[in-house]
Amino acid sequence: MVTIKDVAVRAGVSVTTVSRVMNNRGPLSENTKTAVKRAMEELGYMPNDVARALGKNSLNIIGLVVPSIQHPFFAELVHAFEYDSYTRGYKLMVSASDYDYKKEKHSVGLLRRTMVDGIIYASHSMGSDFLEDMKVPAVTLENVFAGLPAILSDNAQGGFLAARHLLARGCRNLVTISGQRNLHLSADERTLSFIRECERQGASCKVYSADEEMLKTMEYSRIVSQVFNENPNMDGIFASSDIIGAQCIQMAFSLGYKIPDEIKIVGYDDVILSRLVYPPLTSIRQNIPDLVKATMDTLVALIAGEKVPETQTIPVTFIERRTT
Amino acid sequence: MVTIKDVAVRAGVSVTTVSRVMNNRGPLSENTKTAVKRAMEELGYMPNDVARALGKNSLNIIGLVVPSIQHPFFAELVHAFEYDSYTRGYKLMVSASDYDYKKEKHSVGLLRRTMVDGIIYASHSMGSDFLEDMKVPAVTLENVFAGLPAILSDNAQGGFLAARHLLARGCRNLVTISGQRNLHLSADERTLSFIRECERQGASCKVYSADEEMLKTMEYSRIVSQVFNENPNMDGIFASSDIIGAQCIQMAFSLGYKIPDEIKIVGYDDVILSRLVYPPLTSIRQNIPDLVKATMDTLVALIAGEKVPETQTIPVTFIERRTT
Repeated sequence: MVTIKDVAVRAGVSVTTVSRVMNNRGPLSENTKTAVKRAMEELGYMPNDVARALGKNSLNIIGLVVPSIQHPFFAELVHAFEYDSYTRGYKLMVSASDYDYKKEKHSVGLLRRTMVDGIIYASHSMGSDFLEDMKVPAVTLENVFAGLPAILSDNAQGGFLAARHLLARGCRNLVTISGQRNLHLSADERTLSFIRECERQGASCKVYSADEEMLKTMEYSRIVSQVFNENPNMDGIFASSDIIGAQCIQMAFSLGYKIPDEIKIVGYDDVILSRLVYPPLTSIRQNIPDLVKATMDTLVALIAGEKVPETQTIPVTFIERRTT
Repeated sequence: MVTIKDVAVRAGVSVTTVSRVMNNRGPLSENTKTAVKRAMEELGYMPNDVARALGKNSLNIIGLVVPSIQHPFFAELVHAFEYDSYTRGYKLMVSASDYDYKKEKHSVGLLRRTMVDGIIYASHSMGSDFLEDMKVPAVTLENVFAGLPAILSDNAQGGFLAARHLLARGCRNLVTISGQRNLHLSADERTLSFIRECERQGASCKVYSADEEMLKTMEYSRIVSQVFNENPNMDGIFASSDIIGAQCIQMAFSLGYKIPDEIKIVGYDDVILSRLVYPPLTSIRQNIPDLVKATMDTLVALIAGEKVPETQTIPVTFIERRTT
C-alpha cells in the first residue's frame, strides 16, 4: 500500500507539504504542486478512507451476517444486498455463520471492531443477548429479538397460499416438510399457517421436520424417502424450501409418480432452482428486492439516529409453475 | 458507534486518561482505572481496528470481486472464500460486477480506498490495465492478465474428460454449448479441448455460444431450443455450466427424449444444482476448495512480499451421475 510518506519521498518534499497539496492549504509553488501530483500519479497513491474515517468515525461499511452464502436463497439475498449497498455508497462485508455459533460470534466481533456503520443480522445461531449488547446500529432479517428492529417475510401468508392452492387443486392428503423447527424462526409460521388452512378445510396434513445437518448439507433425501414411504396415499406436498421441493420431485420421479397428476408439489423461496428443475416448481416467492430495500432503509435510518418501526412485514407472492 | 470520548465523558475523566488506562501507561489511581473500565463495559466500547490499522497500514480485509454472487458457482466460491479468510483472520469485502464494467471499476476503487490488504479478482469486465495499475497485492482467478499471478482451473482437462466420457458411451453426434466466447477467458479452453478430442476420435461436434444476456439472467432457453431444433440426431451435449445442463434436461424431457438412453448430457462446475435435478447431472467438478486455497496462499504470500508463481492450474474431477 502506497502511503503519503512514499509520495513525499518521491516528490522530494515533506509529508506536511504533500498534505498541504492534498488539502490545497498554505502557500505552495506551482512546481511543488506539480511534483506532488506527479508523484501521486506515478505511485498510484489514493488518499484512503481509513484516515478520513477516524474523523467522521465511519468507513461506510455495512456488515452482513448470513447462515450461508452458497444456499441459493442466501446467495440471492447477499447478491441483492451487495447491489443495494453499492447504490447507497456502502461497501459490504459478508460473514457466514456456517451454522456455527462460535464462528458467528467471532465474525460479528470482527465486524464491530472494523467499525462497520451497521450490521444486518440474517442468521440465527446467536442469542439475542449478544446482538442487543452490540451498541452498533443493527437490523434483523427473519428473526425477532426484543429491542432490535426486524424485517420479516410474510411466512404466514406463504403457508396459507400454498395450502389454499393445493386444496383448490383437489389435494386431501397433504404432507408438509418444514425446516428445523426448534429455532423459533419466523419461518416456522409457514408450516403453522399451512396446517391451519388444511384443518380449516378438513383435509389431512402430516408434518415432518428436517434437522440442522440437512439444512447445512442441503441433502434431504433421508426425510424425503421417509415421507414417501410412510404416506403412499399423499397427493400434495408443501416443502418449506425449493431445495426440499426439488428433492421431492426427484423422489416422485424415481418412484414412478406422475407430476402433477398423481402428486402435486409446492416449494418455497422461488430461487433460480425452481425454474431449472423439470417440471418447473410452483413456489412461494420471498420478495428479495423488497426485503433488502426495507432492511437497508431501516439500517440507514438507524445510523442517522432516526426512529424506525419495530417490525415490518414484506408480502410474498404465489408463483404457479408446472408441479401443481 | 461508541468512541473513546463517550467513555471519557461517562467516566468523568479526560480522553488522555482513557487512553492511558487502555495502554496501561503512566500513574493511575485504582479508582480511575475502575471508573474507566466500568464506563467501557456499560457503553459496550471496543477499541477498534481502524485506529490500530493506521499504524500498521492494514485492516485485515481481503477484497473479492466476482461477476455475480447469486450464480451458483460464484455463490459456492464466495462461500469458500469467506470461510478461508475467516480461518486466516481476514474479513471479506465482496463486490459483484453484475457484468457491468462501470460498477466493477467503481467497486474496485472503493475496495482500494478502504485499504484492503489484497484483492482477488474473479471477474472479467475490466481490462488488465486497470488492475495492473492498482499497486495493491492482487491475484486473479480464471483470468490471465500479464503481470498478475493467476490461479486457473484446468479447463482443458475438463473439456477433454467430458468428450472422452461421451465418446466412450457411444455418442457420435455431439453438440457443445459454451459460455460467451469473446471474453477470452480461461473457460474457453473447455470448449476448445472438447472439440479437439471429438475431432481426434472422428466424431461430429457442433458449437453454440451463449451471449452475455443469457449469462446475466441464467436463462438459456432460446439457445437450448435452437440446439434441439437444429440437431434432431444429436446424441450427446456438453454444456459449459450446470445451469445450461439443467436447461438441456428440461428441454429433452419436454420433447420426450429418454435420458440417458436417447441423449446424454454433461454439465460443468458440479454445483449443488447438479445433484438437485432429475436425473442427477454428470458434471465436471471445479475444485473450489483447492482453487480458494491456492488463491489465498498466493495472495497472503504477495502481501508478505514473497515471490509467487505466475500461474497455478488446479485439476478438475469428472463426476459421473445419471445423465450419461
